[in-house]
Amino acid sequence: MKKISAVKAFGGMQYVYSHPSQACHCDMTFAIFLPPQAETRKVPVLWYLSGLTCTHQNVMDKGEYRHIAAELGVALVCPDTSPRGDAIPDEKDNWQFGQGAGFYLDATEQPFARNYNMQRYILSELPEVLKAGGFALDFERQGIFGHSMGGHGAITLALKNPGHFGSVSAFAPIVQPSTADWSRPAFEKYLGADEAFWRAYDATLLIEDGFRVNELLVDQGSADPFLENGLKPWLLEEACQKADIPLTLNMREGYDHSYLFISTFMADHIKWHAERLA
Amino acid sequence: MKKISAVKAFGGMQYVYSHPSQACHCDMTFAIFLPPQAETRKVPVLWYLSGLTCTHQNVMDKGEYRHIAAELGVALVCPDTSPRGDAIPDEKDNWQFGQGAGFYLDATEQPFARNYNMQRYILSELPEVLKAGGFALDFERQGIFGHSMGGHGAITLALKNPGHFGSVSAFAPIVQPSTADWSRPAFEKYLGADEAFWRAYDATLLIEDGFRVNELLVDQGSADPFLENGLKPWLLEEACQKADIPLTLNMREGYDHSYLFISTFMADHIKWHAERLA
Repeated sequence: MKKISAVKAFGGMQYVYSHPSQACHCDMTFAIFLPPQAETRKVPVLWYLSGLTCTHQNVMDKGEYRHIAAELGVALVCPDTSPRGDAIPDEKDNWQFGQGAGFYLDATEQPFARNYNMQRYILSELPEVLKAGGFALDFERQGIFGHSMGGHGAITLALKNPGHFGSVSAFAPIVQPSTADWSRPAFEKYLGADEAFWRAYDATLLIEDGFRVNELLVDQGSADPFLENGLKPWLLEEACQKADIPLTLNMREGYDHSYLFISTFMADHIKWHAERLA
Repeated sequence: MKKISAVKAFGGMQYVYSHPSQACHCDMTFAIFLPPQAETRKVPVLWYLSGLTCTHQNVMDKGEYRHIAAELGVALVCPDTSPRGDAIPDEKDNWQFGQGAGFYLDATEQPFARNYNMQRYILSELPEVLKAGGFALDFERQGIFGHSMGGHGAITLALKNPGHFGSVSAFAPIVQPSTADWSRPAFEKYLGADEAFWRAYDATLLIEDGFRVNELLVDQGSADPFLENGLKPWLLEEACQKADIPLTLNMREGYDHSYLFISTFMADHIKWHAERLA
């Protein structure tokens, strides 16, 4: 593991590291914020999964999570959204596929299957890297959240791994990527033409298939340009209703899809997680 | 005036505008955050002047000012740090001079005097642009602060314009640019070789020359790499002591010169201004 930067903020430390990844066969970069409480005890871990086109850095720069994470004593881990590098298969001009668009799945199709294994990376490899790094993290208390593609990632990973995450929430998640225009082409390239295999990476279909979380918090801006065609939170609402999953869906009047929306409701989400991970 | 963006955040609106500038003879860009209170009444105006290499955008992305500005009902205006454009004289590889390094002065030397008039721009032109724009701003209640070169700008503009700003503070300001290695070359190019003319743009020398503010708040990181050679807050401390200016100088253990330092203490500064502009 290589330390890229270590900067004091809000009494804690904002780090960026890179490390060689077995799951993705490339060097991966992640950000981790340790609150001041981590100096004396192990703190809960909150995983933040970013959206399309983002790296670890967008939320680190614009997410405004440190003041509340420092207050409540929660660590935030912010991974990248895909494998990276000249050797990684990519479609340079396509922001909805390839680098920056890993969709938190494990690809089965060539030439992507060797590198695009973000599900395995997030669930298994990066936790081991963090444990080996000796950070003061309590892996018995993990929560997960994210934005857009990362909101989809958070919900699907929580659904498929009961007990692994004590809390899950999302900002403007893609709730049904297997039917949305902006994700179907990526799913076909990563997972092949047989849509039956896509269900394992689709939040609403996983719920239909019997997967469950205890409860779910979602914030969604009403002025989000992707609301009608890509995000469709009502599909999640319907699925949760049928499955008796308590969903708090906050429609936020006038907010868009940007980090100005996310940062506005960041403190609410971190409080919600901290209560459930206490 | 041309609206570049308008995004809802923390119940208020974060805008970016550009406009043709008479003072700088180019198009200038600025950010303005209006808190929710501005929907029903005029709110105090807090000017934030950025440091070397920055535009209006660095603090907008990383400053974390909106949550507290929205809570306290203060508007933030964040101008650019210099004139910009292909026609503007510049030294491309020099981050301490030219574009991104206007030093909030009015240049007297050619070829810079036509464009590098950031003092006039901030004090006279941009306020007129904002008034003409019809924003709900109370120009009887203005405060000013900034970072590094912008901290220097804030202090010097407040010193030279008694009564204009009701409050002034700075993060890691350059307190004596006329003697610091990283600003002397810029001062010579903008203002000429006669150092007597530099005193009008030097915080500690202005205080020596009898200029006053009611009080001053400064936060400075102890791990700031520019502390010893460029910033030297003890020179300001000495000048304020001699001049009986109440200075609160907070040395912040372990903090550097970045926006992770600034954002940590942003809420403290905005509260301090809001109290004085109430």
